Amino acid sequence: MLESDAIGRLIEALRTLPGVGPKSARRMAFYLLERDRDGGRELASALNHAVEVVGHCKICHNLSEEEVCRICASSRRDPSILCVVESPTDLQSLEQAAIYSGRYFVLMGHLSPLDGIGPEALGIDRLQAMLDSSEIKEVVLATNLTVEGEATAHYIGELVRSRGIKVTRIAYGVPVGGELEYIDKSTLTRAFTGRQEV
Amino acid sequence: MLESDAIGRLIEALRTLPGVGPKSARRMAFYLLERDRDGGRELASALNHAVEVVGHCKICHNLSEEEVCRICASSRRDPSILCVVESPTDLQSLEQAAIYSGRYFVLMGHLSPLDGIGPEALGIDRLQAMLDSSEIKEVVLATNLTVEGEATAHYIGELVRSRGIKVTRIAYGVPVGGELEYIDKSTLTRAFTGRQEV
Repeated sequence: MLESDAIGRLIEALRTLPGVGPKSARRMAFYLLERDRDGGRELASALNHAVEVVGHCKICHNLSEEEVCRICASSRRDPSILCVVESPTDLQSLEQAAIYSGRYFVLMGHLSPLDGIGPEALGIDRLQAMLDSSEIKEVVLATNLTVEGEATAHYIGELVRSRGIKVTRIAYGVPVGGELEYIDKSTLTRAFTGRQEV
Repeated sequence: MLESDAIGRLIEALRTLPGVGPKSARRMAFYLLERDRDGGRELASALNHAVEVVGHCKICHNLSEEEVCRICASSRRDPSILCVVESPTDLQSLEQAAIYSGRYFVLMGHLSPLDGIGPEALGIDRLQAMLDSSEIKEVVLATNLTVEGEATAHYIGELVRSRGIKVTRIAYGVPVGGELEYIDKSTLTRAFTGRQEV
């Protein structure tokens, strides 16, 4: 053991961060201890505070400090359209693209029967109650375009359609800036069959 | 402001970590809040603990929990050879290579007159006292092979030589696995002039 116990423990703890391996963790630990102890103290305090106060919005299940998150509480968001996403990160990505002004429902995961994640775990009963009781006219399925995301979208799509509400799915296709030469076959097939008149 | 205040503050605080930009910081914050709150608590606690207890070894100036670090305190390290490095990270790299069994002196920086970093700031007076009072027979200059590192090595080299102690400098050359085609001219020149009989 080269490091002192406190440094070793800090390096281990930094490794819980996504994308941080042993080398980056060591670099971060030494950086904080050598050059930015105030930054280290502030990070510790921000972590403790966030873990303490951030919970889930009781309506959309997004991460939120308040009981009802800012999006659900906003009168400027269209209550007739609901976008279903897998995670708060996905919600953030859509918000940053600034293309959507409706509300959200965050599943906090996707259906994965093998891991024991069924509709209950994703709060789909709450989603159904929302669909039954409110003025929603369209549900946009914005789960990931992976096998699990597709299965989840399919499952929720059926529930929504059975209530006579319009269901849409975000489009598959070639990413902006993408070169056809480097796009995989299935994406290209989807982009071609989904072509639109211009 | 999309995030709640607590999440925004956490993201800002994570950005103080080296190599972490706004996107990674957001991903880390959401990861901790969604999936690993215990990890977040442990990281906060490890940070507070390390910032609290880790100081500097009073002999070599390396980061250490104890007043005298494990290397300086070890009877298995050769006291007749002293390796001068710029930072604790550099010391760690040498320790991991496991090629050296002497002691260290950590400058915590390099000479940089324009930034007001002179010999006093690097504790070179303490280094001189060590050279005068102990049984050191060789000083290995292992500062970085940058302009500042070279200047620092040169300055310290003079001090050591004036005391009749042997001074060595780690070698310039082509890195292991390096291909000549991609090596810059000055490195190649150094590698060529520093060629050794085999």
